[in-house]
Amino acid sequence: MHEARDLLLHRLGPVGTMKAEQVPVEQSSGRITAQPVFAAISSPPYHAAAMDGIAVRAIATAGACSTKPVVLDEPDDAVAIDTGDPMPTDKDAVIPVEDIDSVEGGFEIHQAATPRQHVRLTGEDMVAGEMILASGRTIQPSHVGAMLGASVTEIMVRCRPKVAILPTGDELCEPGDDPTSGKVIESNSRMLSAYVNQWGGRPVRLEPVRDEPELLKKSILDALEEGCDVLCILAGSSAGRDDYTPGLISDLGELLFHGLTMMPGKPTAAGIIEGRPVIGIPGFPVSAALAADLLLRPVLAHLLGRADMVPERIQATLSRSVPSRPGLVEWIRVVLGKFEHGWTASSLSRGAGAITTLCRAHGKIAVPAASEGLAAGTKVDVELLVPRAEIEGSLLLSGSSDLALTVLDDFLGKAHPGASLSVSPLGSLAGLAALARGEAHLAGSHLLDPATGTYNQVDVSRVMPGHQVALVTMAYRQQGLCLRPDEERQPEDLADVLSMGMSWVNRQPGSGTRVLTDHLLRSRGISFNGVQGWEHEEFTHVAVAEAVRSGVADCGMLILAAARALGLRFVPLVEEKYDLVIPRRMLDDPRILELLRVLKSAEFKRGMESLGGYDARDTGKVRFLPEGTWSVEI
Amino acid sequence: MHEARDLLLHRLGPVGTMKAEQVPVEQSSGRITAQPVFAAISSPPYHAAAMDGIAVRAIATAGACSTKPVVLDEPDDAVAIDTGDPMPTDKDAVIPVEDIDSVEGGFEIHQAATPRQHVRLTGEDMVAGEMILASGRTIQPSHVGAMLGASVTEIMVRCRPKVAILPTGDELCEPGDDPTSGKVIESNSRMLSAYVNQWGGRPVRLEPVRDEPELLKKSILDALEEGCDVLCILAGSSAGRDDYTPGLISDLGELLFHGLTMMPGKPTAAGIIEGRPVIGIPGFPVSAALAADLLLRPVLAHLLGRADMVPERIQATLSRSVPSRPGLVEWIRVVLGKFEHGWTASSLSRGAGAITTLCRAHGKIAVPAASEGLAAGTKVDVELLVPRAEIEGSLLLSGSSDLALTVLDDFLGKAHPGASLSVSPLGSLAGLAALARGEAHLAGSHLLDPATGTYNQVDVSRVMPGHQVALVTMAYRQQGLCLRPDEERQPEDLADVLSMGMSWVNRQPGSGTRVLTDHLLRSRGISFNGVQGWEHEEFTHVAVAEAVRSGVADCGMLILAAARALGLRFVPLVEEKYDLVIPRRMLDDPRILELLRVLKSAEFKRGMESLGGYDARDTGKVRFLPEGTWSVEI
Repeated sequence: MHEARDLLLHRLGPVGTMKAEQVPVEQSSGRITAQPVFAAISSPPYHAAAMDGIAVRAIATAGACSTKPVVLDEPDDAVAIDTGDPMPTDKDAVIPVEDIDSVEGGFEIHQAATPRQHVRLTGEDMVAGEMILASGRTIQPSHVGAMLGASVTEIMVRCRPKVAILPTGDELCEPGDDPTSGKVIESNSRMLSAYVNQWGGRPVRLEPVRDEPELLKKSILDALEEGCDVLCILAGSSAGRDDYTPGLISDLGELLFHGLTMMPGKPTAAGIIEGRPVIGIPGFPVSAALAADLLLRPVLAHLLGRADMVPERIQATLSRSVPSRPGLVEWIRVVLGKFEHGWTASSLSRGAGAITTLCRAHGKIAVPAASEGLAAGTKVDVELLVPRAEIEGSLLLSGSSDLALTVLDDFLGKAHPGASLSVSPLGSLAGLAALARGEAHLAGSHLLDPATGTYNQVDVSRVMPGHQVALVTMAYRQQGLCLRPDEERQPEDLADVLSMGMSWVNRQPGSGTRVLTDHLLRSRGISFNGVQGWEHEEFTHVAVAEAVRSGVADCGMLILAAARALGLRFVPLVEEKYDLVIPRRMLDDPRILELLRVLKSAEFKRGMESLGGYDARDTGKVRFLPEGTWSVEI
Repeated sequence: MHEARDLLLHRLGPVGTMKAEQVPVEQSSGRITAQPVFAAISSPPYHAAAMDGIAVRAIATAGACSTKPVVLDEPDDAVAIDTGDPMPTDKDAVIPVEDIDSVEGGFEIHQAATPRQHVRLTGEDMVAGEMILASGRTIQPSHVGAMLGASVTEIMVRCRPKVAILPTGDELCEPGDDPTSGKVIESNSRMLSAYVNQWGGRPVRLEPVRDEPELLKKSILDALEEGCDVLCILAGSSAGRDDYTPGLISDLGELLFHGLTMMPGKPTAAGIIEGRPVIGIPGFPVSAALAADLLLRPVLAHLLGRADMVPERIQATLSRSVPSRPGLVEWIRVVLGKFEHGWTASSLSRGAGAITTLCRAHGKIAVPAASEGLAAGTKVDVELLVPRAEIEGSLLLSGSSDLALTVLDDFLGKAHPGASLSVSPLGSLAGLAALARGEAHLAGSHLLDPATGTYNQVDVSRVMPGHQVALVTMAYRQQGLCLRPDEERQPEDLADVLSMGMSWVNRQPGSGTRVLTDHLLRSRGISFNGVQGWEHEEFTHVAVAEAVRSGVADCGMLILAAARALGLRFVPLVEEKYDLVIPRRMLDDPRILELLRVLKSAEFKRGMESLGGYDARDTGKVRFLPEGTWSVEI
């Protein structure tokens, strides 16, 4: 993939070819110098006092010492002066205000001054004609100060490259339109426009064009004629029936490559038409973002003639192994966690269509093409996708998905900017195991022990033997069955699901809800083996709700809040307890302390209860495990 | 200083108090969410094909294998479908195009399909009602894509805090005005405005106000009445005669502190008036930038309720010791160099007025208040001031200052974006010593050996024994005397300077020009001891030129280009050779290779010769030292 990028850059020829335009220095921050900038005048423009005090003739101070003070007559030998004031032409040194005593007709001093002491000589900072900035540099606010201070008020900067963005496809509709009739919301051009702005270009979104070669060809030629510096053609780069982009690049100019050795982002094409780079960007949003990052970002840097904007990197330890297909570089989105021993990176799911994985990710890593994957424990270089300060405040929770966690995340960020909760929805059991392995800061769990009727205590002891943890109650919550609003069958329990022949959507083994389902089935002496959809497993409550809403299944088990969020009917079965599991060593972490403060706040409890199905009567209550061995004030 | 900052932030009360405003999602990148953002619809909004191919009824494919292909009838059992297309309601799986053969009336397949294979179920990425973004998060381009994809087109973001910036002082003039009559160009408000923009605020520059308490008081009250969220009062915070800011903050509200335990930036004050933070920013540009960075940046983050924008950090080894005054945190601006063994940081000069040190710096380090300084070799955390990519391409040259180096820097950056030349003007001898210690990538030297009449070879062997280096000629250049244009005396040689009673400005010992001066004086059998200004030492040619131009001295020794740059008369004395000294191990460094390419280019030679006093006849010629022991093709 880097060869493809380098080929494209090579074919663009010399760097920094964007035209120059004159801008006021005041508005130049962030722009790129097109020419070197020279100081128009020296700074300071005259010999100036560097301290508040008196300007003196050094020769008149000769011999002064603590035992033999000298009195300087005003104004012949000394005059009051402030920092920055020009030196009187007959004075050559400054004595600071703290070293003088005012006396009648002048000043008493206790130490002789040397010529030029506390004087800023003309040009001490910048001399007229000196270069302040070379070509191709990013102008910082301090450069604005320096240029203006050197009397430079207008400079030449490189024009922002105009990036024409052409969405293609018969199925496109505008954001806000109803897409359920088989349309696709055209969001990629807007996402790319935001990237282009960030990378110093000027995005121009063109009217979407239908999947017809003649129309597409006309749009390409129009875009080039109207004077863009780069053309991005969105979608139409995969192997489908209507993918005309690579062929058209070839017809109208030169196709440099079609297909990148990376995933997501494989169906990317690029070439040159009329001397200008034309990039065919794939249609899946993650693919589009990654293809733009690989090609468009360096193309803009090349045209602007500045260093590419390389994201900040962090070295982290991979917490789970990442299998990968050899032959392609695979981009894995990861969530980062800061621990005493350093950073860990946990991979998110990989779908090219899953824009949310890009939104939730703190960074991305590249699994090399030669590799079949990376083992847990591997040190990886993570390219950050969000500001580092937002990552440092992030808490990793592994375990059971729950809607109230998003409320907790929101209130946490409101109370403590930069703090956040990143949830790995592994299910309760796998979440405890991940916590035991040190991959998470805390876990969320609702595991019923049928023998004792207690929640979590038994499984924590079993899965995390020897660990000291605090079980902090988040909530009691309603679990039950969900149904489409227009469902005519009226199951009141699991047995009815079976007898009414309803299809099912399941949760994954090890999730608290699956444990509960299995327990309820067992206690009723029935089995769902053979029920249609029993093998269809989802990882979250809302995924179950959506499967029912969209008709993939007739019924499933979930929390009331998820059913309500999707407008489903809910048949309550049990109330269960959801706990946060926090290792003892984390209990003085400022992020955890902030989390516990938020958890106990009335605002959070109200926000959680308003979701429906939550009871906050014990929220924030703590139990220390192993019981009786320890406790702290929290 | 951090206590002062924390006190100010504490007194601001709750975070994220900026009002919210509704903006189109398309324009929201970089803004801060004021409320959580929830998906309005699920994405994908319908079951959709995840591959190009055919949509099938899985049940119709049962039993298909390579030895027993199955033919699916179109359209009953199979229809062509593209990635993203909605699934027909009677189909439940997709077979990719590469796994099918078209036959008459349908498609032949060689493997059975399972239900939901290559189908993206409704809501697989986002489910309606799911939280896409919590409050207080910085919106990234990928979030724009996700929100639009979930049919969210308008969101509430926090308003940008309005920062009123009030310059004060009788001496101010506008950029572009002539300041030589004792004025100070009002550049700080423009520099701060650029910072405020970078930090997510909205700067409003107010009319400068004179140093009169009543006028200043009125301006402060007007600014607050017109509804700013933060008020910065520029200058007027030191201990001078006209510093009314702290007193006025105290009169109108509450002064929290006056004076920070840091340098530069000590004379900073802050308080609260009518519930709003008011910061008194010092007048020296470096102090202003550092005070704003310490206080204004976190104040804006606090009001916006987002994580503070912490700059990227790099760990580096201090190449020179940095003495520091205990009791104050001292901010040292450093230039970074990337070496095989890691990063080095070299301190720049420290004047609070020297905005150029902030411009030239790659980063800054804090010397702790308890410390008397940091020893060479100390590991330090460097906060970056420019993009990392611009630092990675930077070459450190230690040694003799020369105007042609700025031309080289400029052409280097033009040819190779991100590459640059940072010059430490230590003088030739100290430059070689720094190179020997591994603190620089290359050195610049013009040291005459009077005995042999050669340049640099003898001193390189002496100062860098055992090192293998390439001496690459940059230029021959004219050294001579400079005089003000209106100087009536006409010295033709150093002896005339002495006989005509002219005052002198000297170069520091170890600089090639000082070595040359001493040699010429010796060869003429004269001494300048007792000449007025002989003890006044400057570190660069242009500083000498400026000393003469501004009347501090009558005469000095320098290169023609520096005299010409400042409009001085020049009396040529000798032609000397300036070499770049490059260690053997650096000769395959891509930055050095780029530098050598630029050095040999006709454009550079032309650019250098146009400065005056340079001859490029041997530019790029290489000599390998120790002679006869090695050579490479470069």
